[in-house]
Amino acid sequence: MNKLEVCLTPALISLYDVEQYIVVIVDIFRATSSICYGIENDAEAIIPVSEVEACSAYRAQGLGYLLAAERNGEVVAGFDFGNSPFSYTKEKVAGKTVVLTTTNGTQALHLSRTAKKVVIGSFLNLTALCNWLKTQNENILLVCAGWKNNFNLEDTMFSGAVIEQLKGSNFKLDDPAIAANDLYQLGKDDLNAYVAKTSHSDRLKKLGIEADIAFCLNVDLTTAIPVLEGERLVMLQW
Amino acid sequence: MNKLEVCLTPALISLYDVEQYIVVIVDIFRATSSICYGIENDAEAIIPVSEVEACSAYRAQGLGYLLAAERNGEVVAGFDFGNSPFSYTKEKVAGKTVVLTTTNGTQALHLSRTAKKVVIGSFLNLTALCNWLKTQNENILLVCAGWKNNFNLEDTMFSGAVIEQLKGSNFKLDDPAIAANDLYQLGKDDLNAYVAKTSHSDRLKKLGIEADIAFCLNVDLTTAIPVLEGERLVMLQW
Repeated sequence: MNKLEVCLTPALISLYDVEQYIVVIVDIFRATSSICYGIENDAEAIIPVSEVEACSAYRAQGLGYLLAAERNGEVVAGFDFGNSPFSYTKEKVAGKTVVLTTTNGTQALHLSRTAKKVVIGSFLNLTALCNWLKTQNENILLVCAGWKNNFNLEDTMFSGAVIEQLKGSNFKLDDPAIAANDLYQLGKDDLNAYVAKTSHSDRLKKLGIEADIAFCLNVDLTTAIPVLEGERLVMLQW
Repeated sequence: MNKLEVCLTPALISLYDVEQYIVVIVDIFRATSSICYGIENDAEAIIPVSEVEACSAYRAQGLGYLLAAERNGEVVAGFDFGNSPFSYTKEKVAGKTVVLTTTNGTQALHLSRTAKKVVIGSFLNLTALCNWLKTQNENILLVCAGWKNNFNLEDTMFSGAVIEQLKGSNFKLDDPAIAANDLYQLGKDDLNAYVAKTSHSDRLKKLGIEADIAFCLNVDLTTAIPVLEGERLVMLQW
């Protein structure tokens, strides 16, 4: 029986032998939602980096890159846009390679790169992702980016949504997966209301990104599954 | 406003400045339940150690110690008893000092020792513990011992039970605390049934300790609050 497990924060990833799993990176507010939307909208690739400086370095390499960087909710001076999914429209990203700085999400990706495959999940591509995962006959590890290396409610609840679609398929769940699915049961009927009670909903409001958050809770808006190839996230072909 | 937070596993404790908190150690199957029961039953002190060897060393120091050690569900040869709460009756432990080997629980204690105070929680002393915590006007961190440094459902759900009693008292909860309380809402009406779905309920059954587990789910059987003084857990006087 394959395993279906949840790594609640990147700080716990050493507890898993990631080489034995397909890893799904989960950072729904907002990195993995923006990535799903960008790949859906025909971005050629999205390159996640952790530091603004690493992002800037791509500018020196040529004009083919769009640079996305944000700190404290503001687009960093000299960059093309920030982390809002609304920046990843077809008009802006089709045919382009986007270099995206994220903190929590990039760390989760970096720590997972030895996995059998690394794909990107969000509510936007939930069912497409699950349909593909069902065909794989592999162990699956959902890696929540969390918040500053700690657990967060929204990434865990999204993991529970994935488990909800897969749990009929004879997987063995670990305790974090059982808990994630239970939390999803509590949140599924009104994702917005559930998310509003997270400890950092005030912080998100202060950043003025409520519209982004609401967008990130759109279920099945897209079907593309971003997959890591080398350092680039591209559309999975299947 | 004071903080009421949950550290889901000892592996995450570096994310908290434990010196700013009263820490409650939670390892309900079975270490903290046995400790609560033993202190209630007038054990003079309980000394938790992580290694069987460290436990044996106390024998060399004299005859005043009862030594408790268990590996894979069996009492270790030469020791007085194992980790079952049924070994911590008044007949066995009154007036005695017990040296107890636990793995997950001792690690959580060790990492928390710089806290303002370290106390022991379990369903057995739930309300007494909460009543005392309400009088303290301090930040509170519930440290779940978990399972091999990862999250487990039962310690998290117990943390949620503590939060349930305290959350009216104007604390700021973090996301793990919100999740723990949500999981408790799902489990509270039938703790046994909820625990039966944890990923290691099969393991616990194989160990033949179902009776221990059921005992550990007795709510408010005791009122003693074990507190760490140096290396010894003794009864809190208040």
